[in-house]
Amino acid sequence: MNGGDGASSYARNSSYQRGAIEAAEALLRKEINTRLDITDHSYSSFTIADFGCSSGPNTILAVDIIIQALHDKFSSSLPNTTTPQFQVYFNDVSRTDFNALFALLPPQRPYFASGVPGSFYGNLFPNAHLNLAYSSCALCWLSDLPPELTDTSSPAYNRGKIHYTGASAEVARAYSCQYRKDIKLFLHARSQELAENGLMALIVPGVPDGFLDCQEASTGSEFDLLGSCLMDMAREGRIKEEEVDSFNLPIYYSTPKELEDIIKSNGELKIDKIETLGSIGAQGTMPDLESRVLYLRAVLEGLVRTHFGHQILDDLFDRYALKLAHSSFILQPQTHRSIMIFALLSRCYDI
Amino acid sequence: MNGGDGASSYARNSSYQRGAIEAAEALLRKEINTRLDITDHSYSSFTIADFGCSSGPNTILAVDIIIQALHDKFSSSLPNTTTPQFQVYFNDVSRTDFNALFALLPPQRPYFASGVPGSFYGNLFPNAHLNLAYSSCALCWLSDLPPELTDTSSPAYNRGKIHYTGASAEVARAYSCQYRKDIKLFLHARSQELAENGLMALIVPGVPDGFLDCQEASTGSEFDLLGSCLMDMAREGRIKEEEVDSFNLPIYYSTPKELEDIIKSNGELKIDKIETLGSIGAQGTMPDLESRVLYLRAVLEGLVRTHFGHQILDDLFDRYALKLAHSSFILQPQTHRSIMIFALLSRCYDI
Repeated sequence: MNGGDGASSYARNSSYQRGAIEAAEALLRKEINTRLDITDHSYSSFTIADFGCSSGPNTILAVDIIIQALHDKFSSSLPNTTTPQFQVYFNDVSRTDFNALFALLPPQRPYFASGVPGSFYGNLFPNAHLNLAYSSCALCWLSDLPPELTDTSSPAYNRGKIHYTGASAEVARAYSCQYRKDIKLFLHARSQELAENGLMALIVPGVPDGFLDCQEASTGSEFDLLGSCLMDMAREGRIKEEEVDSFNLPIYYSTPKELEDIIKSNGELKIDKIETLGSIGAQGTMPDLESRVLYLRAVLEGLVRTHFGHQILDDLFDRYALKLAHSSFILQPQTHRSIMIFALLSRCYDI
Repeated sequence: MNGGDGASSYARNSSYQRGAIEAAEALLRKEINTRLDITDHSYSSFTIADFGCSSGPNTILAVDIIIQALHDKFSSSLPNTTTPQFQVYFNDVSRTDFNALFALLPPQRPYFASGVPGSFYGNLFPNAHLNLAYSSCALCWLSDLPPELTDTSSPAYNRGKIHYTGASAEVARAYSCQYRKDIKLFLHARSQELAENGLMALIVPGVPDGFLDCQEASTGSEFDLLGSCLMDMAREGRIKEEEVDSFNLPIYYSTPKELEDIIKSNGELKIDKIETLGSIGAQGTMPDLESRVLYLRAVLEGLVRTHFGHQILDDLFDRYALKLAHSSFILQPQTHRSIMIFALLSRCYDI
């Protein structure tokens, strides 16, 4: 994600993710109120971790919602007890702009704040440390790219494409396998870190069931469109075609069923609830062309820069804007099929 | 402190602080071994906080020493018990370069790491959360400057100086009062945050007893020298004299006795040990002129830049180097009278 707060920063171009949080807010409040069991548990403090928090106003918004819900829960369930002190951990990969994130924290806040650098596909906290784990719009990022995508001898070699959208079934399968491995690592780590009675709320970007091959999922198709711009630039000699062949986006959109299968086959956390938040976001929060381009640029610019260099950025996203203007996203927004999957998990004691 | 890892970064010019840590290492190991009571306490995890950790190799060095000492302690005292998981909090003010700090963390490390932004003169953790608190070379930084230093009607108005060294007794008293207030705030916050059986080890830059008016403490005299360079520049019209009058360094060097008095009069933590680490550091770790200039620049450049602008930096520190070459620090290093005060504190139950 782009750091800082400039025109193409993630902080200023994350209204899509904000839409996800707002859609999940009512659900999150309700689930904290009904599912969190605090009656037979005494908390020295109550610990909350946001996994893959990124660095923008959404980060703070999500925590505010959670803290408010917890305050309500404690004061209604245990009116004669002091509400515990809250400790909030903001986790994301080390390259996240933690200083920008810390600058967003309100000076007067009802919680103690820490930043935790590192991949959430590994352990980040001592065992049984977290009372509430949360992750929004982050579990679509793979820990790594499947190596076969850049192996010319593999049927999953992804020539001329930068994502599985619009690519061969083998490419989609390679992505899907990597996703399954990653989510299992995530669940394993969190199952160790969750305290007794701990809950985990996940908001996972996905596509509706039936889109298993992901050919038509629109956010993926935006990647496909960006890939075609790169190929145009390769044809014009501005970049090398092999550079496009070796560039792939480490992003995967699961279906609700696929995610549910992975959680169940992992077996370390049980599903208290899983539901689809519907086709939220893009139309409402990014109505115009410019905001859609800025959104994609905020998310992907860093990856593009690392692989191709910064020189191509403006040209690439200008081309992308032109293609997007004639795409189905702009001409037929009703075809936008991205969804958010809301899942509430808790520690499983009968394994 | 200067961020990053450039030529004048704190990370590359903190050998003086490193000297302090190394001198304290043996003491720290011994005190952890003898004073930490772990026998009748079961730890779900063991939490360590470094208050005012800054961002450089010393940060990691100190934690490595502490973790090794704790490992030894647990394995020797409780050989049949698994050593608890360690959780380390790196605290410093929000403007600290936390990304640079996180980049220094070894990928394979025997602890979970978090960054905690904020002033250690306030609460940063839930009550009873910390098993071991640590602070090295940080408690000389005042939370703020006494307002009378820039009040022209006050006897403590600090005209033509940037520190209490070489200034009037009223100025020194204003600094001393601020220090006392700050240390009390620090002790109060830590006394709430320390867990039962928790310990706090402090390494505090100071001056020997008898230097209460601090006129001869050499690090302070370096500030005095820097102040005289600024006054030279004011006389030449490069900066305004009032700008020098309104600039003061928020740094105070306590005597061991003064620090002990404050801790005792606060009464929330008891002193298990307090001793002077001797005149360590400068001669051994900064033998030449250039390293002394770079050291001071790494520490003070940010403050100077904020007040006077970046334009004066090179000129100022060039002038400083010239003056330093003819100063007693270089010509008579034996007059260097800075010390480190080592204090070991624990929660006080009889208050």
